[in-house]
Amino acid sequence: MIVVMKTEATAEHAASIVARVEAVGCKTHTIEGTDRRVIGVVGNGLALDIHQIGRMIGVEKVMPISKPYKGASREFKPDDTIVTVGNVKIGNGSMVIMAGPCSVEGRTELLEVAHAVKEAGANILRGGAYKPRSSPYSFQGLGEEGLKYLAEAREATGLPVITEVMDPALVPLVCEYADILQVGARNMQNYALLNAIGKSGHPVMLKRSFSGTIEEWLMGAEYIISHGNTNVILCERGIRAHETETRNTFDISAIPVIKQLSHLPIVADPSHAVGKWEYVGSMSKAAVAAGADGVILEVHPEPDQAWSDGRQSLKPKRFAKLVTEMRAIEAVCR
Amino acid sequence: MIVVMKTEATAEHAASIVARVEAVGCKTHTIEGTDRRVIGVVGNGLALDIHQIGRMIGVEKVMPISKPYKGASREFKPDDTIVTVGNVKIGNGSMVIMAGPCSVEGRTELLEVAHAVKEAGANILRGGAYKPRSSPYSFQGLGEEGLKYLAEAREATGLPVITEVMDPALVPLVCEYADILQVGARNMQNYALLNAIGKSGHPVMLKRSFSGTIEEWLMGAEYIISHGNTNVILCERGIRAHETETRNTFDISAIPVIKQLSHLPIVADPSHAVGKWEYVGSMSKAAVAAGADGVILEVHPEPDQAWSDGRQSLKPKRFAKLVTEMRAIEAVCR
Amino acid sequence: MIVVMKTEATAEHAASIVARVEAVGCKTHTIEGTDRRVIGVVGNGLALDIHQIGRMIGVEKVMPISKPYKGASREFKPDDTIVTVGNVKIGNGSMVIMAGPCSVEGRTELLEVAHAVKEAGANILRGGAYKPRSSPYSFQGLGEEGLKYLAEAREATGLPVITEVMDPALVPLVCEYADILQVGARNMQNYALLNAIGKSGHPVMLKRSFSGTIEEWLMGAEYIISHGNTNVILCERGIRAHETETRNTFDISAIPVIKQLSHLPIVADPSHAVGKWEYVGSMSKAAVAAGADGVILEVHPEPDQAWSDGRQSLKPKRFAKLVTEMRAIEAVCR
Amino acid sequence: MIVVMKTEATAEHAASIVARVEAVGCKTHTIEGTDRRVIGVVGNGLALDIHQIGRMIGVEKVMPISKPYKGASREFKPDDTIVTVGNVKIGNGSMVIMAGPCSVEGRTELLEVAHAVKEAGANILRGGAYKPRSSPYSFQGLGEEGLKYLAEAREATGLPVITEVMDPALVPLVCEYADILQVGARNMQNYALLNAIGKSGHPVMLKRSFSGTIEEWLMGAEYIISHGNTNVILCERGIRAHETETRNTFDISAIPVIKQLSHLPIVADPSHAVGKWEYVGSMSKAAVAAGADGVILEVHPEPDQAWSDGRQSLKPKRFAKLVTEMRAIEAVCR
Repeated sequence: MIVVMKTEATAEHAASIVARVEAVGCKTHTIEGTDRRVIGVVGNGLALDIHQIGRMIGVEKVMPISKPYKGASREFKPDDTIVTVGNVKIGNGSMVIMAGPCSVEGRTELLEVAHAVKEAGANILRGGAYKPRSSPYSFQGLGEEGLKYLAEAREATGLPVITEVMDPALVPLVCEYADILQVGARNMQNYALLNAIGKSGHPVMLKRSFSGTIEEWLMGAEYIISHGNTNVILCERGIRAHETETRNTFDISAIPVIKQLSHLPIVADPSHAVGKWEYVGSMSKAAVAAGADGVILEVHPEPDQAWSDGRQSLKPKRFAKLVTEMRAIEAVCR
Repeated sequence: MIVVMKTEATAEHAASIVARVEAVGCKTHTIEGTDRRVIGVVGNGLALDIHQIGRMIGVEKVMPISKPYKGASREFKPDDTIVTVGNVKIGNGSMVIMAGPCSVEGRTELLEVAHAVKEAGANILRGGAYKPRSSPYSFQGLGEEGLKYLAEAREATGLPVITEVMDPALVPLVCEYADILQVGARNMQNYALLNAIGKSGHPVMLKRSFSGTIEEWLMGAEYIISHGNTNVILCERGIRAHETETRNTFDISAIPVIKQLSHLPIVADPSHAVGKWEYVGSMSKAAVAAGADGVILEVHPEPDQAWSDGRQSLKPKRFAKLVTEMRAIEAVCR
Repeated sequence: MIVVMKTEATAEHAASIVARVEAVGCKTHTIEGTDRRVIGVVGNGLALDIHQIGRMIGVEKVMPISKPYKGASREFKPDDTIVTVGNVKIGNGSMVIMAGPCSVEGRTELLEVAHAVKEAGANILRGGAYKPRSSPYSFQGLGEEGLKYLAEAREATGLPVITEVMDPALVPLVCEYADILQVGARNMQNYALLNAIGKSGHPVMLKRSFSGTIEEWLMGAEYIISHGNTNVILCERGIRAHETETRNTFDISAIPVIKQLSHLPIVADPSHAVGKWEYVGSMSKAAVAAGADGVILEVHPEPDQAWSDGRQSLKPKRFAKLVTEMRAIEAVCR
Repeated sequence: MIVVMKTEATAEHAASIVARVEAVGCKTHTIEGTDRRVIGVVGNGLALDIHQIGRMIGVEKVMPISKPYKGASREFKPDDTIVTVGNVKIGNGSMVIMAGPCSVEGRTELLEVAHAVKEAGANILRGGAYKPRSSPYSFQGLGEEGLKYLAEAREATGLPVITEVMDPALVPLVCEYADILQVGARNMQNYALLNAIGKSGHPVMLKRSFSGTIEEWLMGAEYIISHGNTNVILCERGIRAHETETRNTFDISAIPVIKQLSHLPIVADPSHAVGKWEYVGSMSKAAVAAGADGVILEVHPEPDQAWSDGRQSLKPKRFAKLVTEMRAIEAVCR
């Protein structure tokens, strides 16, 4: 880390910083600038709390040199991580398409849409059995019944299944049914949940929170990885900015940034990012052109009858056309 | 709700909207505008999903009339809610001061600071036993041992105790030791946790999330209240905006807004809002002048030795002086 | 507009609203809801200030029905606007590539890069003669000398030229040299400048401001159009959000949103949006896939010697490769 | 500045950085870390463009040590700047109250409100003659006629006058009538305007832009100061964040931050910050408690008849009561 002293700080102030960090085994190099001192600290940063140093007398600011995430960083592991579920590989260079309804609404309805998305070219089936709803009075999902329908749809179509889990206590149950766990935006920093998933070793897709920085998102992944579970997929689903024409703001640049900073695969969720089906097609194609490892899309046979998020769902026919367009862009780009 | 039709929408489109909402028992009033139709829908809004209507053909947008929260709204309950813990009342018009270290670091240390803040005029003791840290490699809190020290400090000083809980499974344990549970910013929409707390009936302080709107925050409170637990205190702790000189942006206007929209008491947390002790004093005084029901502050005897958040902690002497200043403003304002 | 009354408002309060708006020739329709009244106002909204009505006693909120922009809206003009400069058409369905250095640094340097970008397939030459720099001590551009070099580069290559203007008093001068004026993000609501450009009738590219909503951006365009100048191109260049890995956050969804709300062409500026050349390629390809009418890119032969924004500039060779990739995606998408 | 090299960068890469910066007279100190090199650069930072260095091969990132503003910084000038207009001093430790209508609407109306605010205890009269309106179809202000009314009101009341200027060409005219120029939020980075005001030497109040950082705001002040005009007052008027219950988000922490970083006086504008008169009182009192050098408030005898911003205007009687409350807090705080 780099410790920048205030212009009015004395040599004694600097000496006490040096003593403090050398006491935990770090080495220091002091640079005498024209109007202030700067102290470079070399060694094991984990033994030092940057905020504590920042608090010491005479310190203007402290700047970290290294990333706070290790297991999630490309510096640590240069090769791309490939997450395998069933016969699908995520992160191996070809694009994976996950599709299905926002909520599992019933056995028949799910089977119908599962067959439709499979036929249209989807690789993985999505569907929510436990739904994080902003209102306690809204439909909260079918729970375990929904998980069973998902498992049945997997049997019927051969598509691996992804579904959300919100409660650490339910991680073992959801692992029984789902091929990939999903952590929603609201839970990106729900550490009890991340620890439970880390211990499970199960593949997981971690969504970025509404206002999460990329660093915080990778730190969320680090919680899972720190338990030895490296089957982590990241998912950009739109951040909260000031624009109101779209539900969220799709931070598409997160795709190349993650590719540079981390070895983990990254999937885009245009449905939640923009929140209106009219914009989902163009954003899906953009995500492919930007290099996403996958796209996750909401598909519903009758969106205006959907129990949740119908506003952003595609009909199966439109989805099928979009798959063709995305595959054409993929062919040109890779 | 108000349904605004597109300019090109036909009478048939409007008729199908009308049929849809009347089917669930609502009444409609159609206004023929100069360039479009607008349909007013009257009745029980809970039976209708606003997003589903927004999806129907010919609809430009749908605008809600009523707030989505009921139990948390002042319309529903005009009188201020007063939360009582021990002999302290929060929300009764006088200002409550909560203070203590960010983390419980040890028995002796906690007792020392507990006595110091009591002597300086604090009404409630704060201290974290379970710490939500952005890094899995940082100190995560003393856990149940920390809870025991908090209970001992309560015995020694008579101050009720507030501490954070993150895992729904730990709610019963934390309830045994703490007078007030705290839900941190990262968990404002952790519904499994909110449900567990709602069922416990225990007093709770719900912090606003980094990017939570006031409506979402009140919806988080609604989750707790929907289980019959109305002992909810709100806490503004800074939101995420673009400024980097402060740790977060202290949205002080949330204080009068909450007072208008809700009957729940509201507490300000200047320590986390600005993140630098130099600014904590002026922001605490501002919170009092703005009408906050309480202020929660980090106090540590040796901030530069603190295990977390030392950068924003006040020393006991400075805290004592601040209490005097805050009380003087309170006397002038109320 | 829709006027929502408070639950406690009386019939007299509603009557005075009705009287006020009917006094300026509007008609009203009052809906008696279960817990409050809602008044629909039909007629010429321009005669009413929505904020004034919102101030009246008993009013909870006022919601507009129509867009505040007219000349810029697709409702008003369904057909796409095509801006023609020289032999280049912007907005006619094929993608236009604008490229060149951030700043005009000298005659030789500009001619070199102009030939390079032309050869690589650019359609328009960009280059700043007047530079908006955050520091008064930074290089401010060559001024009129730079304009002359741009004109010379146009002669030499046949490429039309786009360059920024910041001072209303300089609009006539810049119009003499440039084919397209550029209004930078900082000046999206500089009304003196927009009025001067509106009166000039000259083609203009209006960048979105750091925190401008799409509606405010279209209102900026409306200022220009209100003078009869419809030669307006919009440019998305990244907004300010909380992420710091990129210079700004590229709001790519603005592309389909503008296409739906307005008839004006829209160009993407990935260089400023992400601010690091490593991410410019993938973001440019994404913009093409998203349906942009054009892409504007910074190209510099020796980016690490550039006088401004070298961090985000592409070398000509890399730019040439990117043009090929973008054209391939364009061919697949349209 | 501190140059952090990538872990994979070679000694040659570092050597070329060193050569580059030493070529312009800076000295360097290279620190060999455990996994990378860090180069400290000492000397005149103005000769180096931080972004250029950031572009060089092998560089991970570059971190500035010094603030980019000089004339506006407290490091440069430790003593508070006091701006004097007539017999009013801004920045001398006592709080100044500026009040008046949003727009100058007519001679009689302005005189009436000028007398009212004076009687209530205001020190300076505000009123807009040139109004920055988001719509070109809204009332744009009375122009020079409005300036004349302001001058007449000054004669009648003895209150110095503050009013906005938007066009650089109008700076000389507005200087003839106004005691303090106002630069609105939309023009914080309108450099042509800032330069014109800097040259005028006239007192000016510079509002922070919707998404301006404190550093960018001080850089705007630096543009004015760089011409030798140090009569600069800063004004916090709310930033754009995600909350919609208030018009903007009042960043009250800007007050102590500016006090620490700069010697310039700072004024709060609660009217624009929250946009609803119900919240203006508590926010004004908070601003006083936070240490603001002044507060600027919109006052209108009949807010629901105001030509602009009636929603946030106080009636004279309420304003008078608020002045008393603010003065009481000031007495306690200073």
